[in-house]
Amino acid sequence: MDVEAVISRVLQRIKPTEEERVFVEELMREIGKLAREAIKELGLNVKPHFVGSLAKDTYLAGDHDVDLFLAFPLETPLEELREKGLKLGKAIAEKLDSYEIAYAEHPYVRAKYRGVSVDLVPCYDVKTWRDVRTAVDRSILHTRWVNENIKGRNDEVRLLKRFLKGIKAYGSEIYVRGFSGYLAEILVIKYGSFIEVLRKADFILRQKVIDPENWLRREPEIAMKTVKREVEEDKPLIVIDPVDPRRNVSSNLSWEKYGVFYFKSGEFLQKPSVEFFFPPVATRGNYADELRRKGTHLLTVLFERPKLVDDILLPQLEKSARGFEKALEREGFRVFGRNYGYSGGKAFIMLEVDRLERPAVKVHPGPEFFTERGRDFYRKNERVWLVGKRLYAEKRVVQDILDVLFALIEKNQVSLGKNLREAVKDADFLVDYVPGQLEGEAYLFLSRKKDSLKG
Amino acid sequence: MDVEAVISRVLQRIKPTEEERVFVEELMREIGKLAREAIKELGLNVKPHFVGSLAKDTYLAGDHDVDLFLAFPLETPLEELREKGLKLGKAIAEKLDSYEIAYAEHPYVRAKYRGVSVDLVPCYDVKTWRDVRTAVDRSILHTRWVNENIKGRNDEVRLLKRFLKGIKAYGSEIYVRGFSGYLAEILVIKYGSFIEVLRKADFILRQKVIDPENWLRREPEIAMKTVKREVEEDKPLIVIDPVDPRRNVSSNLSWEKYGVFYFKSGEFLQKPSVEFFFPPVATRGNYADELRRKGTHLLTVLFERPKLVDDILLPQLEKSARGFEKALEREGFRVFGRNYGYSGGKAFIMLEVDRLERPAVKVHPGPEFFTERGRDFYRKNERVWLVGKRLYAEKRVVQDILDVLFALIEKNQVSLGKNLREAVKDADFLVDYVPGQLEGEAYLFLSRKKDSLKG
Repeated sequence: MDVEAVISRVLQRIKPTEEERVFVEELMREIGKLAREAIKELGLNVKPHFVGSLAKDTYLAGDHDVDLFLAFPLETPLEELREKGLKLGKAIAEKLDSYEIAYAEHPYVRAKYRGVSVDLVPCYDVKTWRDVRTAVDRSILHTRWVNENIKGRNDEVRLLKRFLKGIKAYGSEIYVRGFSGYLAEILVIKYGSFIEVLRKADFILRQKVIDPENWLRREPEIAMKTVKREVEEDKPLIVIDPVDPRRNVSSNLSWEKYGVFYFKSGEFLQKPSVEFFFPPVATRGNYADELRRKGTHLLTVLFERPKLVDDILLPQLEKSARGFEKALEREGFRVFGRNYGYSGGKAFIMLEVDRLERPAVKVHPGPEFFTERGRDFYRKNERVWLVGKRLYAEKRVVQDILDVLFALIEKNQVSLGKNLREAVKDADFLVDYVPGQLEGEAYLFLSRKKDSLKG
Repeated sequence: MDVEAVISRVLQRIKPTEEERVFVEELMREIGKLAREAIKELGLNVKPHFVGSLAKDTYLAGDHDVDLFLAFPLETPLEELREKGLKLGKAIAEKLDSYEIAYAEHPYVRAKYRGVSVDLVPCYDVKTWRDVRTAVDRSILHTRWVNENIKGRNDEVRLLKRFLKGIKAYGSEIYVRGFSGYLAEILVIKYGSFIEVLRKADFILRQKVIDPENWLRREPEIAMKTVKREVEEDKPLIVIDPVDPRRNVSSNLSWEKYGVFYFKSGEFLQKPSVEFFFPPVATRGNYADELRRKGTHLLTVLFERPKLVDDILLPQLEKSARGFEKALEREGFRVFGRNYGYSGGKAFIMLEVDRLERPAVKVHPGPEFFTERGRDFYRKNERVWLVGKRLYAEKRVVQDILDVLFALIEKNQVSLGKNLREAVKDADFLVDYVPGQLEGEAYLFLSRKKDSLKG
């Protein structure tokens, strides 16, 4: 299939239908009206602004969460903004179907209306980046900038977003570290089309800095500071925010996700296919076969999933998985890979290790021999020798990997996410076996299909 | 037993008897006479000098090799010294019982006379360090300096030498790197007695520089250069040669051997015993039991012993043992210890490893993804993923340790001593088994009795 045919097939699935458009527009009109009413009832000087992909008309078919930002005058004190913002959010939500309070930098109201999720977020009514006071304030500026510059290329953005989703590189959440929607919009605006962005995957990386609004000329000092900071942190890409020279839009983008985009772009251009956008569900295999084939072993730590949002839970699971890996490596086991996640009410950490038993002795490096600690070490150890000026001793150790782990956990020598410590103490430790609902996960992990660039 | 009693017992065994003294003196007189005759017959202007422990009267009972140095005038060209020196050596040896030619910096004659080994070594008749031209020229100066300074403490030197032998720290050969006889003599002259040297084991290390002839005052520039050079090379001790400010007498002394001396000195002073001087033969155990106890495995490379002197063979065996260790570690095996040596006509290298099989896959780190090599690596590998900007791939590998080793040797990826390469290609590789004559060696190695500080 050629590129045009693939694109047209994909657009059929991701472009909202006329019917959906009408629904979305009506929804926004209604919510806008209800918001203005509530503002009036509370006697507030607040401007409601729709932001996000609905407001920019870059949403994918079927994916239409509403973001309504409630912009308070700049002179409002922060405390007042928090308090009145939440009150106003609730007042609006009362007119919708249902709601709950969610927490980001500030609390905000997450409501439901006609089956759609509606976020009601208080912010400042900023006119320029110099006014920005809270993390969400830029959203109104972003929406305005995209709408002024997109010039009808909305479907190109839709294609790029769906492509990034298909290759698992979409989302700027800390546990994803991929491309944000705003970044996708900027790239399309800068390079003209979905295909042009893909063609430039190598060029973009080499060019390193993208500066659509010429901040490096208009505000050289501030913009250079941004570039220097991000270069020092070795970011793959620096996209100076068109609405704020202090910010790198792709600050959260990881090398891994750029790498996926890099290879998949090349492959798509060589051999276009709908599968890049809508990958087939990975073929499931048998994890036990995979273990036999590889001659490795699977250790799974399974525990109650703490009631935490993904933004908190997933980074802690990642930290803990790394902690287990380091502890085992220190003890002489080799860790080939780590994996984590949750399924139902259970959280899990998986480690692929080279063996389940180590020798009964360990070579333990000690201090230099002529020190106080050296003389102690010499006294305390039976089998002790020198390599250069350093003492070494042979120590008896437990052999079984689970005994090793239990002792480490007991002595708090595994670095764990702070909200997981208690849960891990009551965890089940499974060896070369996982319960039914994790069989697929274990297979994807062990076969490396989970993080493989080649699916 | 108190120190005095131990010392007196040891002296009984190491001090030459009156009978032995008479024999040695007569031997030197005779050989000296024969040498002078030969010099006369050849019409040479050469002075014969006895050097070494016989000439200094610091030899141990029963250990009386004769060193006769043949000192040529300084104006003799080096070529002439080599040629005439060898000729003279042969002429003297003809008057003794038998001889052969040995090779150091220059060839020399090694003769036998009345059951004693007699080295006949040509050198220059140097009066001062400024005259020194070959490595052996200093010996005459060393002998003279010791004889002028020892002041009757010859038995103290004998005690220190025997103590160093007992704790396996004696000998400055490159494959021992312990204390030379001359170093032992200097230490006794400097600190007054065997016991005082032991008491100063910590002090000597901290003081770092010993300069009995005050070279740092007399030749500050040259002596400081020596100190700086040796400090940079992180030597445990710097003893400026009393007869040559350019030389560190303890230049070959390793931290390991100083460490042994350090701990054993302290232990001897706390609990004196004859066993420090004459250690009991290590109790022999069963190496197979040791392997079971430790949960480790023994790999032995056994091959024809190349016809090389220890000075050449042993360093090459050490290098090869290290080469095997590095190669195996690179391939995912852990090496707990290495050992080498020869026994009869066979040379061997032993490696204690953590296991005999590894998993069937290996995680192979690749280049950065956005390079030419990165794109190649991506193309060539099936299971490939990113960690940061670096590509990784999973590769299938052979599992058995012998298959791994054979492949490495085949591809010349084990760093071996240059004279051993061919022999290793025809070697036997033994797993958890050694032939009868190596059973004791294997036990001493695996039980760490061989290099243990605690015997």
